[in-house]
Amino acid sequence: MTGSIHEECGVFGVYSRDGLNVASACYYGLYALQHRGQESCGIAVNDDGLIRCMKDVGLVNEVFTKDRLSELGHGSMAVAHVRYGTTGTYPRRNAQPLVVNHIKGTMALAHNGALTNAAELREALELNGAIFHTTSDTEVITYEIIRQRLNSDSIEEAVSRMMDLVEGAYSLIIMSPTKLMGVRDPYGFRPLCIGQLGDSTILASESCALDSIGATFVRDVKPGEIVIIDKDGIRSDERHIGIRPKASCVFEYIYFARPDSVIDGTSVHIARQRAGSFLALEHPVQADVVIGVPDSGLDAAIGYARQSGIPYGIGFIKNKYIGRTFIQPLQSDREDKVRIKLNPVSAVVKGKRVVLVDDSIVRGTTSARIVRLLREAGAVEVHMRSSAPPFMNPCYFGTDIDSRDKLIACKHSLEEIRQILGVDSLGYLSCENVLRLCDNSAGFCTACFDGNYPCPPPSNPGKNRFERKIREGEG
Amino acid sequence: MTGSIHEECGVFGVYSRDGLNVASACYYGLYALQHRGQESCGIAVNDDGLIRCMKDVGLVNEVFTKDRLSELGHGSMAVAHVRYGTTGTYPRRNAQPLVVNHIKGTMALAHNGALTNAAELREALELNGAIFHTTSDTEVITYEIIRQRLNSDSIEEAVSRMMDLVEGAYSLIIMSPTKLMGVRDPYGFRPLCIGQLGDSTILASESCALDSIGATFVRDVKPGEIVIIDKDGIRSDERHIGIRPKASCVFEYIYFARPDSVIDGTSVHIARQRAGSFLALEHPVQADVVIGVPDSGLDAAIGYARQSGIPYGIGFIKNKYIGRTFIQPLQSDREDKVRIKLNPVSAVVKGKRVVLVDDSIVRGTTSARIVRLLREAGAVEVHMRSSAPPFMNPCYFGTDIDSRDKLIACKHSLEEIRQILGVDSLGYLSCENVLRLCDNSAGFCTACFDGNYPCPPPSNPGKNRFERKIREGEG
Amino acid sequence: MTGSIHEECGVFGVYSRDGLNVASACYYGLYALQHRGQESCGIAVNDDGLIRCMKDVGLVNEVFTKDRLSELGHGSMAVAHVRYGTTGTYPRRNAQPLVVNHIKGTMALAHNGALTNAAELREALELNGAIFHTTSDTEVITYEIIRQRLNSDSIEEAVSRMMDLVEGAYSLIIMSPTKLMGVRDPYGFRPLCIGQLGDSTILASESCALDSIGATFVRDVKPGEIVIIDKDGIRSDERHIGIRPKASCVFEYIYFARPDSVIDGTSVHIARQRAGSFLALEHPVQADVVIGVPDSGLDAAIGYARQSGIPYGIGFIKNKYIGRTFIQPLQSDREDKVRIKLNPVSAVVKGKRVVLVDDSIVRGTTSARIVRLLREAGAVEVHMRSSAPPFMNPCYFGTDIDSRDKLIACKHSLEEIRQILGVDSLGYLSCENVLRLCDNSAGFCTACFDGNYPCPPPSNPGKNRFERKIREGEG
Amino acid sequence: MTGSIHEECGVFGVYSRDGLNVASACYYGLYALQHRGQESCGIAVNDDGLIRCMKDVGLVNEVFTKDRLSELGHGSMAVAHVRYGTTGTYPRRNAQPLVVNHIKGTMALAHNGALTNAAELREALELNGAIFHTTSDTEVITYEIIRQRLNSDSIEEAVSRMMDLVEGAYSLIIMSPTKLMGVRDPYGFRPLCIGQLGDSTILASESCALDSIGATFVRDVKPGEIVIIDKDGIRSDERHIGIRPKASCVFEYIYFARPDSVIDGTSVHIARQRAGSFLALEHPVQADVVIGVPDSGLDAAIGYARQSGIPYGIGFIKNKYIGRTFIQPLQSDREDKVRIKLNPVSAVVKGKRVVLVDDSIVRGTTSARIVRLLREAGAVEVHMRSSAPPFMNPCYFGTDIDSRDKLIACKHSLEEIRQILGVDSLGYLSCENVLRLCDNSAGFCTACFDGNYPCPPPSNPGKNRFERKIREGEG
Repeated sequence: MTGSIHEECGVFGVYSRDGLNVASACYYGLYALQHRGQESCGIAVNDDGLIRCMKDVGLVNEVFTKDRLSELGHGSMAVAHVRYGTTGTYPRRNAQPLVVNHIKGTMALAHNGALTNAAELREALELNGAIFHTTSDTEVITYEIIRQRLNSDSIEEAVSRMMDLVEGAYSLIIMSPTKLMGVRDPYGFRPLCIGQLGDSTILASESCALDSIGATFVRDVKPGEIVIIDKDGIRSDERHIGIRPKASCVFEYIYFARPDSVIDGTSVHIARQRAGSFLALEHPVQADVVIGVPDSGLDAAIGYARQSGIPYGIGFIKNKYIGRTFIQPLQSDREDKVRIKLNPVSAVVKGKRVVLVDDSIVRGTTSARIVRLLREAGAVEVHMRSSAPPFMNPCYFGTDIDSRDKLIACKHSLEEIRQILGVDSLGYLSCENVLRLCDNSAGFCTACFDGNYPCPPPSNPGKNRFERKIREGEG
Repeated sequence: MTGSIHEECGVFGVYSRDGLNVASACYYGLYALQHRGQESCGIAVNDDGLIRCMKDVGLVNEVFTKDRLSELGHGSMAVAHVRYGTTGTYPRRNAQPLVVNHIKGTMALAHNGALTNAAELREALELNGAIFHTTSDTEVITYEIIRQRLNSDSIEEAVSRMMDLVEGAYSLIIMSPTKLMGVRDPYGFRPLCIGQLGDSTILASESCALDSIGATFVRDVKPGEIVIIDKDGIRSDERHIGIRPKASCVFEYIYFARPDSVIDGTSVHIARQRAGSFLALEHPVQADVVIGVPDSGLDAAIGYARQSGIPYGIGFIKNKYIGRTFIQPLQSDREDKVRIKLNPVSAVVKGKRVVLVDDSIVRGTTSARIVRLLREAGAVEVHMRSSAPPFMNPCYFGTDIDSRDKLIACKHSLEEIRQILGVDSLGYLSCENVLRLCDNSAGFCTACFDGNYPCPPPSNPGKNRFERKIREGEG
Repeated sequence: MTGSIHEECGVFGVYSRDGLNVASACYYGLYALQHRGQESCGIAVNDDGLIRCMKDVGLVNEVFTKDRLSELGHGSMAVAHVRYGTTGTYPRRNAQPLVVNHIKGTMALAHNGALTNAAELREALELNGAIFHTTSDTEVITYEIIRQRLNSDSIEEAVSRMMDLVEGAYSLIIMSPTKLMGVRDPYGFRPLCIGQLGDSTILASESCALDSIGATFVRDVKPGEIVIIDKDGIRSDERHIGIRPKASCVFEYIYFARPDSVIDGTSVHIARQRAGSFLALEHPVQADVVIGVPDSGLDAAIGYARQSGIPYGIGFIKNKYIGRTFIQPLQSDREDKVRIKLNPVSAVVKGKRVVLVDDSIVRGTTSARIVRLLREAGAVEVHMRSSAPPFMNPCYFGTDIDSRDKLIACKHSLEEIRQILGVDSLGYLSCENVLRLCDNSAGFCTACFDGNYPCPPPSNPGKNRFERKIREGEG
Repeated sequence: MTGSIHEECGVFGVYSRDGLNVASACYYGLYALQHRGQESCGIAVNDDGLIRCMKDVGLVNEVFTKDRLSELGHGSMAVAHVRYGTTGTYPRRNAQPLVVNHIKGTMALAHNGALTNAAELREALELNGAIFHTTSDTEVITYEIIRQRLNSDSIEEAVSRMMDLVEGAYSLIIMSPTKLMGVRDPYGFRPLCIGQLGDSTILASESCALDSIGATFVRDVKPGEIVIIDKDGIRSDERHIGIRPKASCVFEYIYFARPDSVIDGTSVHIARQRAGSFLALEHPVQADVVIGVPDSGLDAAIGYARQSGIPYGIGFIKNKYIGRTFIQPLQSDREDKVRIKLNPVSAVVKGKRVVLVDDSIVRGTTSARIVRLLREAGAVEVHMRSSAPPFMNPCYFGTDIDSRDKLIACKHSLEEIRQILGVDSLGYLSCENVLRLCDNSAGFCTACFDGNYPCPPPSNPGKNRFERKIREGEG
């Protein structure tokens, strides 16, 4: 819903056996994953054990100029990352991939997710003399791998032992001097898939990143699986598969992922279109046109229109030139930002009863502004439908749905929200039907809606204590 | 069609009588007009006769940082411009607004269009000792106004006399020390409209720019009209109204303008949707889904779907992070650029007979690539429909449809084009129906389709001789 | 004096008959002339009649990156410029070289100096319909050349006729499609010299720029001379030689020029050392050490030390990393800036009677601060000596000594100034001896000291009226 | 000699009890220390336990814009650093201050020097599971402090224990949540001094940095001393004082430090002037003028001139606009760079027998080029004198005199060097007299000249193995 909730990261990795330019492949892959994080990005290239890394605050096309990309040079492997960081953390310091030296050589990691026992692990490490340069969970994971590595025969063994220690959400790509590894936590909170391009193997958060370089989708990494890729091919460590119930994030389908991605066998576009169909069944209304809030409400709007028989229309034009550096010189900023981003098409809504479909309603302020724009453009009725059930609980698994204070559904009744939004009717997708969006209806985390956490939340769910201590400039 | 044809410019102006921040208003206005020109942009603010101008190569959000916008300061009037320039010209040198000193003070101009007798006028001026700093027609217009100003009682009289001399397309905003003027050539090639916000008067290429600052649409400037705005209000010089047949560019409706704009009484979105309906009537086909090429083919696709009864689908996801600085590190660049910008949604097209609607077909290379992507994604049939008739002739009125060599329809038969594009069937909107896209069917320039030029083309239609002589760096 | 008075420009040009990289030669030449102007710089390359120009606000090493320099490409001729502009003018708009199109082709100009009849000429041109894009005198000169060109057989004839019309200071380099011309006004206010490198001919403001590219000094351009350089060699138009008394700026020797330059036969370093010797004779004092204010007071300090027999010492260390972008975050900025730029060497001045030699005293504020630093470092007496006589009059010939209000010597007696500066004694070089600094003592402009203007000052000596009207941003 | 040898770092710290803007004080201090490192710089501000850090590749005026400086905000303490890094290391990764989280909170460190047992310590740490983000010795020092901190009652106790473990050169400034500490290794290789400004205490590599903010010099930190500064004042841990013989770097006086600094009681300027006097006594010659190579040869040239009675002259003008971004577009780059930086003043050297004084001779290539420039300018004899004895051995204590291969004196006899440089005579300061440059002649490290290393060199003196493994981009 126009940027209110953020996925924390996207990861991408390549192991090439056929001379593919791995830095360029990462560059394309990050472009396709940019929606998963716009704050910082980075690529680390492994050139026969020498790791060159370039990462910075900014979008892919800002950080990776032609010169910088060519400075990364050639190599047989690379790992890449896009990151969204919540305000108050340290964007440059926490940019990934994380590259470290240790007793056995060097290692680069890219991580999507969040641990629930990071604070405890961190404190134990510190009591043993560890120092931390970042405030990210990734550094905790890195330490645990390296410490296990001291007594393991291989890096994959060390990674497997790390999985015994950490709890929570993690889709990881790990690059050692000679191997590329993909790891998905036993719950499978975040997606991770495998692709093939010629004789190169790819790992990516979403299949759309495979498409961007012309690679073929092979399969998803299984929850709990470690995929080890080296010169001999691909193999798996399956020891952690099945030890936990699958609990992949349903909001990936509703909002985070790109509609052209297929995750764990279900097309994101189809899942969203189904959400719209269910909404039409759950919350029917007499109306003249169905419109979606661009871009993430469009697929569900089509589903609603098809199911209901009400014509689908293009209700808003989105200004595609609003970039990160957009400034708001006038007073009433919030208002203007919505208007400059989204302009209603009067010819479509004037004098009409409008069904307005959006992916979700978080705080409600943007939704209310959008509704007001529609009314100014002449809509006579506005019926709002949300593809997601009401948000009632924080997420501890890698998104920033983090405070009950800011969630409108925690503080107001349905009728109150309807009035706040200024709509004629309001309908949310039910928690029952949200489980039916995918082909395989089992194994989703819906904690943000229903509070059923697949694993225990952090003991101290506030921002960890380290976040308060260091703040690094952009310079 | 994804960017093959370019509008040359967008213009915006404000006259404030109530303390509106005119620089900020221009900033928002330019954002809304960015689709009309992405090469350079500028704003000139008139602070009690002192004109401060900031212009540079780049998008609005690149050129106008917070600091730069505040350096423009306050004033009662401002004029602004976005520009697209064809390769080989001098982007920074030709950036607008053009600000000049002359015997009566200073003047700033913003121009959308192209003259057909610029070369002759320029030579005559040079024979009288004139020097030119730019290669743009705007400098010719400026000279003609200033020379007429020497013997005129007012700037508006000088502007009126200039209109007796120049031929071709021009929508102008002119700022003198005390007045803001909007001028539209007698044919009305390019749009220009008037808006109101509080006690401020706005001029803009398209009504979507009025919406962006919350202004109300008042009316379009009439072909041949000079609108004079000053502290006393708005008045018109109507001497050139009606002296030429109206010939506004029909391609504004099909491609250039934003769908949320209303031009000369017709909604651009509705015109495009009608194009789709006509296409369904002219070129029906048995199919499973209708998809549009984002973004400019979407409206027509909806029209086709509604008329035909075939379901509308979202066939492509467009990567919204591809910016001006996108680089293409891999070999097969053209190919990758289309794929990274547009990814088909397999779930929508796989195993389907697809109607693919685009706004137009220029060279055919991008269309062929898009068709190939659809087939790779599993489409079993692809039926292409173009909202524009075939391009057969160059445009001399402010767009870059300039060479028969590059227009696929000039070189190939319909059947040949169908084979080149690799589609199962191909249909263009007819020239007859293109005239029916607007509510008022009279008065369009369709020269690019049918060769009926409303005024004589330039005697030497090549790039003017000056273009060869100076080339200015970006620095 | 550390930067209180500014030269307006430096010029450089190359005509190559042997494949010399003319853009690179200009780049080196501008580096050597950077002291003559730090606001903007530019290079225009003539590639067989096509002129490519790159100019921008900034130092040479900021504007000319490797990419930008290579974009200028190859050519047989080039002209280049560094500029200092007083506050309130329009740095980017007025950056040079000025490149224009006219009826006979294109022309590029670089200008050092200032006209005294620019306002009258400009008004006459405007009454004939001329428009001005800049506020510089250079555009007036350009117009006059182009207008004369209409009725002349050659560009050099047009330049010669222009010289009949304009009055004041101008050292010009003009580049036509096939010729490079050097012009020095009949008074010879500003320097201009000719050099040779292989089969290439060079024009430069100062001989140090010839040294920087390894070229040999050939001779100075004579006051009133037009030097025409083309494929056939060098020739002169001597019609304006001798029509005015020579009046070259004596302050070039005292401050503006680099000490390693030789102007009109006299080494700048030697002239400065002589100033120090004369000061020792005119204003002797009992002291322990002679120190100079870096950098422009050092040569005269050596002269004073040698003549007086008092040891020369290094009294200050200048911080060489203070760049254009130096900011002053603390409160008492002026104070801190001097201290951070110049730190006294205590070991040299502590307990000593110090003779402090500077090139000149303009407002006195910086001098007073420097004296205070010396006293804080332990100097027991400070005796100030100035290589220049007191400034009493504005300069209209290309420097910014422009207002009696700000000249300390216009407002205070010698004794008052001594007290203001806080020195034990104060001595200026006499106007008589300032004429003896050069080997050839005739023909200097000393108007800033004695009010003897070689040609009538402008009728309205304020900033011209156009300066008020346009202000251009840096963007 | 003009940039061939590099100091690795400069450090600066402030503890304020009176509201001094500590970030601004650091900014000024870094400006004054810029000569000690031009590759990267950084400032960390402690705002009541929250540390904000800004560091980047670039000069102080490039990294610290007004915005960035103000983002650092206010605080009671700050630590700052300038760094020079040899090619092939990772400038951004290794930029300082280093800021880390550990079990007791946060810590920031700035370090000047180099350890001789870093590799051994690092390996031991890694065997215990440590990971390293940088390749610098500073991270080793940090780990050792933190590990000692686990069992120490205070941070100063932990620092003291760290000093029992590490060997080599280190002048450190350490900032804990409540204390600022200055540490100088027991040999006192690198300088570190204490200043006072109002009720604020300052630590700085050189006294010139105290001058830059108007602070008073208090005293040098003693070799082996830990100075602890907190709200209660200053106190010392003196346990490591006197446990090693003093061995401060004599080359600080000859080249690294600024002449206006006073180190361990001796003025750098006076030390250099003495070097010139000794050279005149050791290597007298009949000549007409004594000139120094700017800037570091000037002081010694004055000493030579005074002792010999031969007049001192300004032989070269140094171009002060050659910045870090200077590019060399022409072919013979090395040659041009010297010429564009240094231009001889012909009037001073033409026809003269010249004594040329430089601080040292490393490879000899630049010296040879300078001599050639003098001959081209007309010098009839050139007698070179070096303030430093011949370099014969690598330095392991924080400078980059690291390879015998590149030291001309290791490969050639005095007569051969004389011929290579193309001088008429050549004289180095003797190792005996180099010890007499300071007021207190005992306790210098002269290992680079005589091979007497104060502590054992590293067991494997090559670049450490980690340097090979990671390479980070500038982005």
